[in-house]
Amino acid sequence: MADAILVLNAGSSSLKFSLFEIDGGAPLLVQRGQLEGLTTNTQFVAKGPDGTTLAEHSWYRALGHDGAMTHLVEHLRASLATSTLRAVGHRVVHGGVRYSHPVRVDAAIVAYLETLVPLAPLHQPHNLAPIHALLARSPQLPQVACFDTSFHRAMPEVAQAFALPAAITDRGVRRYGFHGLSYEYIASVLPGIDAGAARGRTVVAHLGNGASMCAMQGGVSVASTMGFTAVDGLMMGTRTGALDPGVVLYLMDELGMDVRAVEAMLYKESGLLGVSGVSSDMRTLLASDEPRAKFAVELFCYRLGRELGSMAAALGGLDALVFTGGIGEHAAPIRARVVEAARWLGLTLDPAANAAHGPRISAPGAARAWVVPTNEELMIARHTQALLGTA
Amino acid sequence: MADAILVLNAGSSSLKFSLFEIDGGAPLLVQRGQLEGLTTNTQFVAKGPDGTTLAEHSWYRALGHDGAMTHLVEHLRASLATSTLRAVGHRVVHGGVRYSHPVRVDAAIVAYLETLVPLAPLHQPHNLAPIHALLARSPQLPQVACFDTSFHRAMPEVAQAFALPAAITDRGVRRYGFHGLSYEYIASVLPGIDAGAARGRTVVAHLGNGASMCAMQGGVSVASTMGFTAVDGLMMGTRTGALDPGVVLYLMDELGMDVRAVEAMLYKESGLLGVSGVSSDMRTLLASDEPRAKFAVELFCYRLGRELGSMAAALGGLDALVFTGGIGEHAAPIRARVVEAARWLGLTLDPAANAAHGPRISAPGAARAWVVPTNEELMIARHTQALLGTA
Repeated sequence: MADAILVLNAGSSSLKFSLFEIDGGAPLLVQRGQLEGLTTNTQFVAKGPDGTTLAEHSWYRALGHDGAMTHLVEHLRASLATSTLRAVGHRVVHGGVRYSHPVRVDAAIVAYLETLVPLAPLHQPHNLAPIHALLARSPQLPQVACFDTSFHRAMPEVAQAFALPAAITDRGVRRYGFHGLSYEYIASVLPGIDAGAARGRTVVAHLGNGASMCAMQGGVSVASTMGFTAVDGLMMGTRTGALDPGVVLYLMDELGMDVRAVEAMLYKESGLLGVSGVSSDMRTLLASDEPRAKFAVELFCYRLGRELGSMAAALGGLDALVFTGGIGEHAAPIRARVVEAARWLGLTLDPAANAAHGPRISAPGAARAWVVPTNEELMIARHTQALLGTA
Repeated sequence: MADAILVLNAGSSSLKFSLFEIDGGAPLLVQRGQLEGLTTNTQFVAKGPDGTTLAEHSWYRALGHDGAMTHLVEHLRASLATSTLRAVGHRVVHGGVRYSHPVRVDAAIVAYLETLVPLAPLHQPHNLAPIHALLARSPQLPQVACFDTSFHRAMPEVAQAFALPAAITDRGVRRYGFHGLSYEYIASVLPGIDAGAARGRTVVAHLGNGASMCAMQGGVSVASTMGFTAVDGLMMGTRTGALDPGVVLYLMDELGMDVRAVEAMLYKESGLLGVSGVSSDMRTLLASDEPRAKFAVELFCYRLGRELGSMAAALGGLDALVFTGGIGEHAAPIRARVVEAARWLGLTLDPAANAAHGPRISAPGAARAWVVPTNEELMIARHTQALLGTA
């Protein structure tokens, strides 16, 4: 019987999972899938590593988070006929200032992670829910929390600090940065792709529905565009990215909005969706002739270019730019614009290579641009495997 | 009798003035001064162009804004024995989307400028108060409003837009940028200092108690670090600069702060003062051995370096960096750190020239760094003179 590791990524309305088998060596994906629409009409799908559907189900009702976990455990029971579940690894958005590495969780550690809910109210409670559920169901089953913030704990103090009163900073109000598991994965494979970039000054752009950039020096994070929350930095699918804090005060003073209404606007109604009025999906916008859709794409790329300059400043120059995430891996027109605007940093686009999605999309020059698919689930599986021997 | 132009800069607790004479040619400063402590213990001083004191007075009570104006008019009556006051030029923080140039004001225009108060509640009402007062006292006296935002109206649309819903952007929630009269003055003298910089890609850092940077292409603003309000961008004496908007929501949710309390913290209790816990004055911090003072200075310079990268991205590279404003003109250690951190942009510090405050403080290289004293009052006087013939 092989050992198996389950990786969970629990959000507000979905539960994503990946099952890995370990047989002496590295984690090997055997299936992945998700339960979506947990609070509306729940749908389940599980697929093999080649994308073939292994199981699917629709309920036409809300299964809820507990119901979803029960269904997943039931589903995995059959799948685990040939392997033994040794541990569960969880994606957890926030590890606070304490965790610069993944940690095997117990009740005390979960209690600490609960104290971080105010730092990420929209994500942290959902991430912790399945940990609670499994601690209750299977207290002996090792669980590992892997944090989106950990990779950035290496950032220098000046990159983490806001210019706020010290008493506020001391409460944990600092730039944490997120998408750390994605960046850590890229850093882990970069030596095999571009050894100079792995040793040198590399900016990784993780562009999905959430989007951020990380400046790495020798594979270590020195700056992130995301800040205290996941709303800061780059323009995203429905999030503003960087926004003058005075705008928040204006929305409250002049439009009478309260905290929840502003939060909803900044997280759910802005970004590509808000500017275009059409869609949060880059594919839809790239296919649209609507002037506002074109402007949304233009603004997305402009903001990327500006933040790339800021990242290059944190590094004192640029050796390589890596695109990853859904948009980064698939939206060739976006990459083309960003690389062309970064000519001043030594990048020159190779249009044919870019159209073919790389891996290298830059012509010979002072710096290189790459497309590297990310794999956060594998990163979590690796961490979970590594911590299996710890208590 | 020579013609005279009075320049007024009215703030929340001070009224600054400069008197220029025009005798055929350019405006010539004949005296300047201020009434300070308008709401506490008011003090008045007037000085000649060489710095000699011409008049001073202390009231040991609050004179108020109207009382200050009355005293100033009275004082100028004596000074204007040899010249005739032809017009008054005002510094006004906000011209909205309408004014990309100064304008001669009438009641209708002042009414429009009043509608912009919500965009700059801490400054606009004070700037407009003396315009109202003089319209009532001397309706025939031409008055010209010169806006801190006008110079940046040239910025491309992507540099002005936040990624907010279009309905919010359409209400005027955009990146305006400020310190425009300072940048316009620098742009006006740059051809005589560095013709390549005037034609090319230049970043001007206006570093005073308020601080911002402007990216100029051929002397035209293409980007500003300040945004919707004057709190965004660089770290300042008491203002945060760029801040994740999620922090505002956190302060309200977790600390129970209201809009006014957050506003006070972001504008008055943060920046160099909040981080150091010592002072908002760069001279004090540079002279301090306190670790928090050193960190505040380090953060100030780091944030400058990061934003300089973002400005260079807006320009596609850098030909010149210009320092101006109180800190920019006088704080050699700050300039040294910023230029040394910008080596990747082609700048090399000339330490001896920097210690002597320039004008050129960079060694030969791909880019140049300069110290250029600003003169916003002269810029206002020039605009006022130019608009004297208009009705």
